[in-house]
Amino acid sequence: MPTNKQVLLAARPKGEVKESDFRIVDVELPALGDGEVRVQNHFLSLDPYMRGRMDDAKSYAASTKLGEVMTGGTVGEVVESKNPKFAKGDRVLSMSGWQQYAQNDGRGMQKIDTSKLPISVYLGSVGMPGVTAWYGLKQIGKPKTGETVVVSAASGAVGSVVGQLAKSLGCRAVGVAGGREKCDYVVKELGFDACVDYKAGNLDADLMAAAPSGIDIYFDNVGGAVLDAVFKQLNAFARIPLCGLISGYSGGAFPLNNYRALLVNRVNLQGFIVSEHMEFWPQALQELGSAVAGGRIKYRESVAQGLENAPKAFMGMLKGENFGKQLVKLI
Amino acid sequence: MPTNKQVLLAARPKGEVKESDFRIVDVELPALGDGEVRVQNHFLSLDPYMRGRMDDAKSYAASTKLGEVMTGGTVGEVVESKNPKFAKGDRVLSMSGWQQYAQNDGRGMQKIDTSKLPISVYLGSVGMPGVTAWYGLKQIGKPKTGETVVVSAASGAVGSVVGQLAKSLGCRAVGVAGGREKCDYVVKELGFDACVDYKAGNLDADLMAAAPSGIDIYFDNVGGAVLDAVFKQLNAFARIPLCGLISGYSGGAFPLNNYRALLVNRVNLQGFIVSEHMEFWPQALQELGSAVAGGRIKYRESVAQGLENAPKAFMGMLKGENFGKQLVKLI
Repeated sequence: MPTNKQVLLAARPKGEVKESDFRIVDVELPALGDGEVRVQNHFLSLDPYMRGRMDDAKSYAASTKLGEVMTGGTVGEVVESKNPKFAKGDRVLSMSGWQQYAQNDGRGMQKIDTSKLPISVYLGSVGMPGVTAWYGLKQIGKPKTGETVVVSAASGAVGSVVGQLAKSLGCRAVGVAGGREKCDYVVKELGFDACVDYKAGNLDADLMAAAPSGIDIYFDNVGGAVLDAVFKQLNAFARIPLCGLISGYSGGAFPLNNYRALLVNRVNLQGFIVSEHMEFWPQALQELGSAVAGGRIKYRESVAQGLENAPKAFMGMLKGENFGKQLVKLI
Repeated sequence: MPTNKQVLLAARPKGEVKESDFRIVDVELPALGDGEVRVQNHFLSLDPYMRGRMDDAKSYAASTKLGEVMTGGTVGEVVESKNPKFAKGDRVLSMSGWQQYAQNDGRGMQKIDTSKLPISVYLGSVGMPGVTAWYGLKQIGKPKTGETVVVSAASGAVGSVVGQLAKSLGCRAVGVAGGREKCDYVVKELGFDACVDYKAGNLDADLMAAAPSGIDIYFDNVGGAVLDAVFKQLNAFARIPLCGLISGYSGGAFPLNNYRALLVNRVNLQGFIVSEHMEFWPQALQELGSAVAGGRIKYRESVAQGLENAPKAFMGMLKGENFGKQLVKLI
C-alpha cells in the first residue's frame, strides 16, 4: 500500500499561526474496499477560510479537531477504483484535506474536464474562489454599467476574478493590494483601471484618486483598515459583499470608526459563504470556465512544492506573501 | 399679522450641541397671498435625524444652512386659507420646521383625521417614526414567528413600535434602553419580553440572558457599544435594519471591534431612510393608525412646553433624557 503524508492540526493558534500548530505524519493507506476509489492528489488549495477552522470559536463551519487532517480542497487523479462511477485516470476535485491521497466511496468527488483547462484552475478561477467572486459580485453587488467596483486582495484568487468580471460588466474596476508589484500586475496584466497599494501609506488619498466618482460596490476580502477607509468614500446605495476578513483572522482586528457611512449612504452589507449557494455553481462554473479557457479571465498561481511546505505557504498567505492563487504541488 | 417665533441654526455644533448653536427670532408673517394657507402649529416633533442636518458633512439630506429655520415635522390647524383645498379648522401635518406658523401654497401639507386619534400621534407612532419602525422591521428585518428581535432606544418613538410590532408577529421582543425606569416601562407597559438596561454595566451578560436563543434581528437606532455587543450574539442569517446611530452623532463614535460576526453569521445589514420608501407609507399608516386607535400599540410622549424650550429638549433627547416620543407643544 502507498504511504499517505498528511498535515494534522496539532495546536490551536494563539495569535499568528506557527509551524508548531501543525504536525506532519505518514500513514499507510488501507487496502481499497469494494465501491471505493483512491485518488492521488496533484494540488492542494490553500485558502484564508482555513484559518477560521483552526480556532475553536463559533463559526459557520465546524472547527477542525486537534489531531485531525487540515481541511482543504484538492485536485488529483484516480489511481485505483473499485467504484463503477470512477475509472483509473479520471481527474477529480474533492475536499480531501491536506494530504497526498483521498480514499473513500467516491462521496464528494467530482470529475473535472482537463482537456481545455489545466487541472489547478479548478481550485482557483474555475473553482471555489472563482464562484465566490462571481456570486458576491453578481448576486450581492448587482453591478450596473458605469459603477465603480473596489476589491481588496485584488491580485488573489477571488479578487482577481472580481475585478475582471467587473470590467466585463462595464464597471470601473479598482483593486487594493499590498505592494507595487502586485498593483502593477493587477492593472497591467489583469486590466483593472487602477490599483491602490495599501502599504504605501496614503490609503485615503489613493483611494479617492482611484475612485474619483466614489465607490458603488466594495467586495471585501480583508476587513480592517481598508474597510474603514472605503466607508468614507461610499456612494449612496452602495453594496458591500463581505467575503473575508483576513486582516483580523489572527486576532486584534482593526476597529471600524467610520461606519456611520453605512447609514448615511443607505448601504447594504451582506456576509456570505459561497457553499451555501450551490444553486448558482453550475452557471458560475460554466461562465468562468469559458472565460478562463478563452483568455478573458487571467490568473496567477503561487505554487509551493511538496506537502511538507504547506504550513509555511499557508502562514505566508495569511500575511499576503503569496502572489496569486496559493497552491501546494503534491506530486 | 401674527408674529411667528422661529428657531434658527446659529452655529454648527462642535461636539455636543449647545444652546448657542440656536437663535430664536420673532418675525412678522406676511399677508396671505392668493392660493396660500396659514397653519398654526400645535406640536413640533424632535427627532435624532435633525442632528445630522446641523452638520455640514455629506449626508443623505442637505444640511440646514446657517441662519435657516431648523428642519422638523409639525402638526397644526389651518387658521386662514385662500387655497380651495384647505378650510379653516383643517388639521394638517407638514415639515414646517421649528416655528409656530407654516404659511405657503399648501405644498407638502397633508390633512389628517383627528376624530379617532390625538393630533400628536401623527408625529410619532402614526407618523414618520412609526413608519420607520414598520418599514425597517417588516421590509428589512422580515421577521419569522419565534425569532428574537432586539431593538435599541426601545422606549423611544421608533423602538417602542418595533417591539410591539415584533410581538404581534409572534417574535420574542427584547428592548435595550437606558435606566431601570425605561426598561420597566418597555416590559410592563409595552409588553416586550425583556429589556436590557445598557447603563447597568453588564451589557454582554444581560443581552445573553434576555436573548438566550441568540439574536435574529437587531433594529439599531444607536450604533456604538450596543451594536458591538449585539454582534457577539447574532444568529446565522441575522438581519440588521440600521436606522440611526445616535451614539455617534456628536462625534467620537464608539469603534466596532466584533464585526467579524457579520461574516461568520452571513448577516445582512441595511442602512435605510424611510422617506425613500414612500410606496409603503399608505399601508404602514393604515396598519399603525388602526393598531394605535385600537390600543394594540401604546406610546408615550415627552412634551416640552413652548418653542423657546425646543433647543433644550433637543439636547436632552440626544442624551437619552426624554422618555418616549419627544414633542414640543407650541400653543
